Amino acid sequence: MAKDSFVEQIADIDTDFPQWYTDVVVKTKLVDYGPVKGTMVIRPYGYAIWENIQREMDARFKAEGIENAYFPLLIPMSFMTKEAEHVEGFAPEVAVVTHAGGEKLAEPLCIRPTSETIIGSMYSKWIQSYRDLPVLMNQWANVMRWEKTTRPFLRTSEFLWQEGHAVHASEEESMALTLKMLHVYEEFARTCLAMPVLTGRKTEKEKFAGAVATFGMEAMMHDGKSLQAGTTHYLGQNFSKAFDIRFLDKDGALKYGYTMSFGVSTRLIGAIIMTHGDKRGLVMPPVVAPVQAVIVPIAAKKEGVLEACRALRDRLAAAGIRVTLDESENSPGWKFNEWEMKGVPVRIELGPRDLEAGKCLLARRDTLEKTECALDGAAQTIRELLAQISANMYERAKARMESRIVRANTLDELLAGVEGGNFVRAGWCGCRACEDKVKEFAQATARVLDGENTSDTCIVCGKKAEQTVVFARAY
Amino acid sequence: MAKDSFVEQIADIDTDFPQWYTDVVVKTKLVDYGPVKGTMVIRPYGYAIWENIQREMDARFKAEGIENAYFPLLIPMSFMTKEAEHVEGFAPEVAVVTHAGGEKLAEPLCIRPTSETIIGSMYSKWIQSYRDLPVLMNQWANVMRWEKTTRPFLRTSEFLWQEGHAVHASEEESMALTLKMLHVYEEFARTCLAMPVLTGRKTEKEKFAGAVATFGMEAMMHDGKSLQAGTTHYLGQNFSKAFDIRFLDKDGALKYGYTMSFGVSTRLIGAIIMTHGDKRGLVMPPVVAPVQAVIVPIAAKKEGVLEACRALRDRLAAAGIRVTLDESENSPGWKFNEWEMKGVPVRIELGPRDLEAGKCLLARRDTLEKTECALDGAAQTIRELLAQISANMYERAKARMESRIVRANTLDELLAGVEGGNFVRAGWCGCRACEDKVKEFAQATARVLDGENTSDTCIVCGKKAEQTVVFARAY
Repeated sequence: MAKDSFVEQIADIDTDFPQWYTDVVVKTKLVDYGPVKGTMVIRPYGYAIWENIQREMDARFKAEGIENAYFPLLIPMSFMTKEAEHVEGFAPEVAVVTHAGGEKLAEPLCIRPTSETIIGSMYSKWIQSYRDLPVLMNQWANVMRWEKTTRPFLRTSEFLWQEGHAVHASEEESMALTLKMLHVYEEFARTCLAMPVLTGRKTEKEKFAGAVATFGMEAMMHDGKSLQAGTTHYLGQNFSKAFDIRFLDKDGALKYGYTMSFGVSTRLIGAIIMTHGDKRGLVMPPVVAPVQAVIVPIAAKKEGVLEACRALRDRLAAAGIRVTLDESENSPGWKFNEWEMKGVPVRIELGPRDLEAGKCLLARRDTLEKTECALDGAAQTIRELLAQISANMYERAKARMESRIVRANTLDELLAGVEGGNFVRAGWCGCRACEDKVKEFAQATARVLDGENTSDTCIVCGKKAEQTVVFARAY
Repeated sequence: MAKDSFVEQIADIDTDFPQWYTDVVVKTKLVDYGPVKGTMVIRPYGYAIWENIQREMDARFKAEGIENAYFPLLIPMSFMTKEAEHVEGFAPEVAVVTHAGGEKLAEPLCIRPTSETIIGSMYSKWIQSYRDLPVLMNQWANVMRWEKTTRPFLRTSEFLWQEGHAVHASEEESMALTLKMLHVYEEFARTCLAMPVLTGRKTEKEKFAGAVATFGMEAMMHDGKSLQAGTTHYLGQNFSKAFDIRFLDKDGALKYGYTMSFGVSTRLIGAIIMTHGDKRGLVMPPVVAPVQAVIVPIAAKKEGVLEACRALRDRLAAAGIRVTLDESENSPGWKFNEWEMKGVPVRIELGPRDLEAGKCLLARRDTLEKTECALDGAAQTIRELLAQISANMYERAKARMESRIVRANTLDELLAGVEGGNFVRAGWCGCRACEDKVKEFAQATARVLDGENTSDTCIVCGKKAEQTVVFARAY
């Protein structure tokens, strides 16, 4: 194998973004295709991102008093049918177990597409009194939704996620947590993924099957399309009535609880890739990057170079930086390309002359700028640089998103807007027919409701508007 | 509800151990029964133990250079049949998906009972050259084995586990890691679970379906029965041949790799309960205890008591101790009983007189001893006490196990031994018929091979022995 054949070409990000995505996720070994159609294998470089997401997110949940638990994978089919909208939304997508232990099952079981039903059935058993409330639980789990068209991380039949499920005594508390968790997700996206998002309520058409109201965060991808990156659902008493989740209140009356749920998934990895990636490949946000800094020795065979690189690696690791030293036999140029494609935030070059001068060279992945850095205190310098990279990546993505949110007054303007890779703000009367018309005319959907709007007219029917909607094409 | 009705009676541990187990796991809210027969719901108090096990175990894996990944849940049925012993062992237990997305599948899929096959199929794709070896991966996942008789944590249709899968270029390296991981498990059990184990090779009859050799660690439960608490499998070239895992070696020849796998599961939680539990309920080993110390205020309404308790809690938490302050309205006596049943290693009592004297009272769960402790420096004292408790629990369990390993020269002695709640050492000729006879006569199985034995005779047939075997009744 010729060494230079390894850093393969990836498709051009601007002219063939879908192929760029496929090339990048496979060639950087984030993921591979599983043997069953629509499934993915998350390889170590991809799974490490998920572990970092889990660690950061889980700490936020625990700070809110949310405890982790684990509920069964298999749900009796009869549970799915207890909430009318829920079964309508999910039944077409479920995978069904009909045989087990060598026998046909009396009742078919479905692999959870989401767990409101089975968790509701347990909450019904556990909750007796107002003293038992609120119940705040989360699980990290795999779920399955059989999809016709799939893409790694974005839409696969099986994916990993967290699903939080809470019960409160009052509508106010339940809705408050629904909005609070949306805020937690937004803060997480900003802080850990350097990813700006729009947050807001979803339309009836776009809400979760069985919810009273769904709230989402939407992120703008490189091609201007939107990706739903997290949702929270206020479920009212829909599931508590379906699963008999009742509590004896202080006043002696038996009342139904109010439930809500919230989730993010391995889709976030796709969002990271498509928000920050560039023509060279991945650009990893430092907080969740599997490798935050890579050391590339220059003239590695010269005396003292490898030893100095190893000493630097050990010092950086001891300082809590996720660092790798590339000791492979590839050329420095090859290593530069490879680690750039893998999106490592900081590359550290260290050769004989640097060593003599007591310094090293730092190359930022986000701006490709290079700066010198004294070997003494390198950990502190690199830590600060990682924070700068994170802030810069966020600001750059935010400026980009904001510059690409346009206003439309006609369907033609809306179409031109989304075709140009923009999010489009427009007035909407609130009716389903007009929402469907936008989809049909511009292949765009209502991503979030952006506030009341009574001074405007509906972009479709021209009647008085009720809401401003952000429309976009979406993943 | 009368308050004193809450701390319910649990069955007597010595006269009805199975009922004691069921009472304890349900009443301490470790687990509940799921709606599908044989499934369990792991509640927050139980799941927190699993999170602690994961954290400790995962750090050990990473120290060995093992990376986490995630492979699909669903395995094509045709994969299972590629390794003859493997399919024979697992096919009767699998759950089968026949329909998905509203359609009948062309090929039925099974929910992974273990992942050698699907991981093997991916390794075949990823491994080309000796430079790609070794491959060292692990996944934290759910698996499913349809069982007739189930008990929470010990045997359930779905359980959580980790499964590590490695490929090496040589038999020596593969076998070395198989033994190394057994050692890692033993060290983990000792250090984190205060659980002594016997380790050793399994007989042909007891080995993993598809392995060349299986090694296990066996722990002695309160009733003297054995529980298999972790296994490592040397798979030789069985799976590399079935899945075509080949690499181009340095000498230019294309060779099959050597694979091995290793796993522990939520069964470990059952092992903890049944190793350390006593008539009062759980006794949690400090390293994995969800709550390491609970503060019970005495005369909580007296001025300054609650404030002092909260200040102490905050100081202990800041020192890294997992601490809870019980501010409920229950009486101190009620709280003592409840937290004892939940097995919290250290109870801290703090009342007005303690406060005046600048001290608190520490009650150990393992020995029930009480000692005074100055409030200044309490964190350090409690940290040391937790380490003492851990060491004491290990030594106590070890002494107990060692005192209950007996020697038998006849089948009658073996039967008497296992009926008396012992592990029984005996000579064995190595043939399956004699192993089966022990099972039939004494309902005991070969737990581990305990070394060569040529000076002895087989306990069944009286021929020259080849091995010493530890026989026991087992979970």
